[in-house]
Amino acid sequence: MKDDNDKLKVSRRGLFGATAAGAVIAATGTGTGLFTGTRAHAAGASLAPGELDEYYGFWSSGQTGEMRILGVPSMREIMRVPVFNRCSATGWGQTNESLKVLTDGLLPETKEYLAAHGKKTYDNGDLHHPHMSFTDGTYDGRYIFMNDKANTRVARVRCDVMKCDKIIEIPNAHDIHGLRPQKYPRTGYVFANGEHEAPLVNDGQILDDPSQYVNVYTAIDGDTMEIAWQVLVSGNLDNTDCDYQGKYAFSTSYNSEMGMNLADMTANELDHVVVFNLREIEAGVAAGDYQELNGVKVIDGRKGQNKNYTRYIPIPNSPHGINTAPDGRHVMINGKLSPTVSVMDVTKLDDLFAGNIEPRDCIVAEPELGLGPLHTAFDGKGNCFTTLFLDSQVVKWNIDKALAGEDPILEKVDVHYQPGHNSTSMGETKDADGKWLVSMNKFSKDRFLNTGPLKAENEQLIDISGGGMTLVHDGPTFAEPHDSIIVRADIVNPVNVWDRGDPMWEEARRQAEADGVDLDWGADEPIRDGNKVRVYMHSIAPNFSLETFTVKQGDEVTIYVTNMDDIDDVTHGFCLSNFGIAMEVAPQATASVTFTATRPGVHWYYCQWFCHALHMEMRGRMFVEPTGA
Amino acid sequence: MKDDNDKLKVSRRGLFGATAAGAVIAATGTGTGLFTGTRAHAAGASLAPGELDEYYGFWSSGQTGEMRILGVPSMREIMRVPVFNRCSATGWGQTNESLKVLTDGLLPETKEYLAAHGKKTYDNGDLHHPHMSFTDGTYDGRYIFMNDKANTRVARVRCDVMKCDKIIEIPNAHDIHGLRPQKYPRTGYVFANGEHEAPLVNDGQILDDPSQYVNVYTAIDGDTMEIAWQVLVSGNLDNTDCDYQGKYAFSTSYNSEMGMNLADMTANELDHVVVFNLREIEAGVAAGDYQELNGVKVIDGRKGQNKNYTRYIPIPNSPHGINTAPDGRHVMINGKLSPTVSVMDVTKLDDLFAGNIEPRDCIVAEPELGLGPLHTAFDGKGNCFTTLFLDSQVVKWNIDKALAGEDPILEKVDVHYQPGHNSTSMGETKDADGKWLVSMNKFSKDRFLNTGPLKAENEQLIDISGGGMTLVHDGPTFAEPHDSIIVRADIVNPVNVWDRGDPMWEEARRQAEADGVDLDWGADEPIRDGNKVRVYMHSIAPNFSLETFTVKQGDEVTIYVTNMDDIDDVTHGFCLSNFGIAMEVAPQATASVTFTATRPGVHWYYCQWFCHALHMEMRGRMFVEPTGA
Repeated sequence: MKDDNDKLKVSRRGLFGATAAGAVIAATGTGTGLFTGTRAHAAGASLAPGELDEYYGFWSSGQTGEMRILGVPSMREIMRVPVFNRCSATGWGQTNESLKVLTDGLLPETKEYLAAHGKKTYDNGDLHHPHMSFTDGTYDGRYIFMNDKANTRVARVRCDVMKCDKIIEIPNAHDIHGLRPQKYPRTGYVFANGEHEAPLVNDGQILDDPSQYVNVYTAIDGDTMEIAWQVLVSGNLDNTDCDYQGKYAFSTSYNSEMGMNLADMTANELDHVVVFNLREIEAGVAAGDYQELNGVKVIDGRKGQNKNYTRYIPIPNSPHGINTAPDGRHVMINGKLSPTVSVMDVTKLDDLFAGNIEPRDCIVAEPELGLGPLHTAFDGKGNCFTTLFLDSQVVKWNIDKALAGEDPILEKVDVHYQPGHNSTSMGETKDADGKWLVSMNKFSKDRFLNTGPLKAENEQLIDISGGGMTLVHDGPTFAEPHDSIIVRADIVNPVNVWDRGDPMWEEARRQAEADGVDLDWGADEPIRDGNKVRVYMHSIAPNFSLETFTVKQGDEVTIYVTNMDDIDDVTHGFCLSNFGIAMEVAPQATASVTFTATRPGVHWYYCQWFCHALHMEMRGRMFVEPTGA
Repeated sequence: MKDDNDKLKVSRRGLFGATAAGAVIAATGTGTGLFTGTRAHAAGASLAPGELDEYYGFWSSGQTGEMRILGVPSMREIMRVPVFNRCSATGWGQTNESLKVLTDGLLPETKEYLAAHGKKTYDNGDLHHPHMSFTDGTYDGRYIFMNDKANTRVARVRCDVMKCDKIIEIPNAHDIHGLRPQKYPRTGYVFANGEHEAPLVNDGQILDDPSQYVNVYTAIDGDTMEIAWQVLVSGNLDNTDCDYQGKYAFSTSYNSEMGMNLADMTANELDHVVVFNLREIEAGVAAGDYQELNGVKVIDGRKGQNKNYTRYIPIPNSPHGINTAPDGRHVMINGKLSPTVSVMDVTKLDDLFAGNIEPRDCIVAEPELGLGPLHTAFDGKGNCFTTLFLDSQVVKWNIDKALAGEDPILEKVDVHYQPGHNSTSMGETKDADGKWLVSMNKFSKDRFLNTGPLKAENEQLIDISGGGMTLVHDGPTFAEPHDSIIVRADIVNPVNVWDRGDPMWEEARRQAEADGVDLDWGADEPIRDGNKVRVYMHSIAPNFSLETFTVKQGDEVTIYVTNMDDIDDVTHGFCLSNFGIAMEVAPQATASVTFTATRPGVHWYYCQWFCHALHMEMRGRMFVEPTGA
């Protein structure tokens, strides 16, 4: 693989040198665009009361750790789905059902670390990149997948009930960042990038010796949520995407230098995109060309291996976002520290792997678009929308013009301020429809009422249906919008009421059977098993089936609550006062919680999800008999 | 005190009998109003991008446990302020600074219970009733106070930085529900209701003997957040409010029966409002007429004490909300199970306490308004807006007409569905301005895209500026909107950058001084103190001052991070990967976290609050040397 430096059309090294801090601040809000979109309010974005949104938005929340469901174009947050965070309302992280999801996939050393801190699970996550499962190149409404950069996890949300059902910790990798599902023939694989480099066996034998650090690319089976294989790569990993043929996946690397500090990380004029050849990797795994580490088959795809697992395509300094166009052919690699987007043609990748062409031959255009290009979205009509972080703009440009070597820029619109990800309606599928664009901006500054030193970030909605870009809505967000997808409403069809046979409370069902209790209706008295006590009750508005129950001080108590209301939206809650216990019990669901009854006396439990005119009267008493009584 | 039954104008006992569950369901969305407001979209509610809201909305989140800051009329959630919940983004519940706020005010037996579960603080709360401090009958922009029904706490948020600085657990009471600050001359007292009845000394000696249960009313000093005094009352306590003279406070009781189940709680046709005479209570405390329990002076204000601390005014079955009108004279007591609102004239209370009149003489009107009146808000022009839970409506009615015995109803508007609290712009102050009304509805059902079995609730914005009621916006909310206040923007003036001398990190400052470290700029090497290690660093985008630091496996490590950027909106985060640690560090703030370094190896920390174009490169390594190395 020869050095492709001489083929590069653009090199603007040094743009982010010592004055970077000054540059970003100076650039804030000072658009340099040729054409600046109007900021008029378009009626289309604003629904009359009672009107439904045309699209579901599935949103990451960054370090907040939850997934969000928004309506688009109203940009209203309709639901929070706890994933990596703790949730006071639903009991996520406290109920036995959620703890199973949160703990089953943790590695043994993580469980040890948490246990040393009195915990079963992490309390935080940094949720990026929610993406829906695909079938045949478009969304199929089954699952949303997402990553946790903070604690190296990948999670899945079931779209039938909009709850997280699987979280796995990724061994060998560090700090999962980029994530995308396989588009074709289906998901299939979920691709996940380990961003930070570390010793492959990170047990402290190697510390400050970066030459022995590695980065790891992971393919997860989206159906089983088990790891299919991993690939060692050269350089770090940032974002990832894949093709519409089911043959290749690709990841950007902003730190091909494997630098450990800012100067070293941005030293080279060229970083790269790694191309992963899925068939070759599968064949390598099948042929046994891997090492097994922590139960995972790890292929070596680093430079210089002379194998066909990977190729490295040089890209100007610090590429960040990578986005496959709905045309199924072009992949946009966004330059970040280069003002360019590199257009890769996936039809050339067979020849690249065959050795017929050089890596840079796959780059068929590299238009200069503005300062700080980070991510590109699509309208399905041959146009791209690229966020320009430093310019605080979105630039609309045409692929064909770029391929023809013409100036591809059609329009620029100011956004407020410093955009990161953007997304268009259905834009990461073959069904991109070119109606709405959301720019997820990292700073809001003066766009909302001041809330003190900590300010919202800003999700802006841009109407692209008319061919131009019209900014129609500013939406504050906590803490980071990070990334989103915009999905046609007809694709998503959640149920209103849980199926009583749902696997979510499989363990509760098994325990109830062992106790001879009907989990639906509960029992009149607690089941005692040594100092373990199990209390089964049901709820029908406005009553719990048990008005009182009695345990002894020091008992380990598990309470199971089944909501036997089967009416849409009649969710109950179970809150045990002064025991720090609260959980959601949606229609026909079961939830359970376990605690030690250290406090003697009378303790009230009450319904904490409004259910009825007599909701406040929906309560009962737990009597804890004091030790020795 | 004679039985006032015969004076009651309305008695509709039995409305919520055996068919209550059916009634609430049947009533959903079927407005029975005489006049139904239009549902057209008013342009006024929808701001153009970049336009600022005219009002701050301070919102409870119910069982979500956080306080929210919304903009009104745009109804956008601008900021989440963690209070009783855990926050993945800010590290609330994990940083030493937040743990101090969360733990300092806990009772000893609560700390024991939590310690038995490996915890320092509760992970959940049920946040109701955010109310701003008053001076001279109107908001003064100092603090927001709020209660936690789940774990019997009261909290305060500083409006300069919009962070919670005090949380206290209320002894002797159970499950704090209603909360309001003193309006005049200033706050002063924060009044808080213990909703659930229990033995005064709840140590398990008394269990299922409700005759020995009590309820407790609490006055907290809003400046010191210490408890001034408590009053034992007859019956339970629900909501509370106070007058504009600084003389009286009042609480509704929906369970004067002290019933332990639904039938008993709703058995009587009459419940009551308790009136608290502040001067008499203060005099009683000064005279030593109290018992001291858990460090609090507790006055006995139960029926039959023949003292002047309290009076009990009979009110039709199960009164719920209580709201003092901006006229400073009339207090609206909402009937819930009675279709009436009872209008109490505070100018009669002196005579009531003097024994010159009977309790019911203070009720000067009791108009029948519709089914399920819960809360009343005001326009400052003599009109009231009362939520009708069962009718799913808001009714506008006129005080003077009610006093004159005329039909006071001016208009009804359908809301969607089952409204609880409502609030008007500045409506709970003498400066009520009659521009906006928010109806906080407990069910949304079909108003938003379906999100599965768990659905949003619905905050609806109604334009009342034109004299009518025009529904202009549906706002989904998670989990419960519960209550809100709407405050003119000029009253609230948060800072953009923290003061380095802020008391929030007083302990960090003291420790740094003891370690001979400048807390602003940090130290080049960790400070070792046996197996305790303290790491001090600062951040200036895009760098932490420490690229690496080294500790030993098993060390108890405390990391202090000071954000030395002093530019608006340049917040940093500190996330230590795979250690479950993340915290917000806003401009000029310090935050710290303590953990045990059980995991050997190379561990990355990174900035998790987007700060700069090279934000992703803002990282460093913690080396943990293995035991025995």
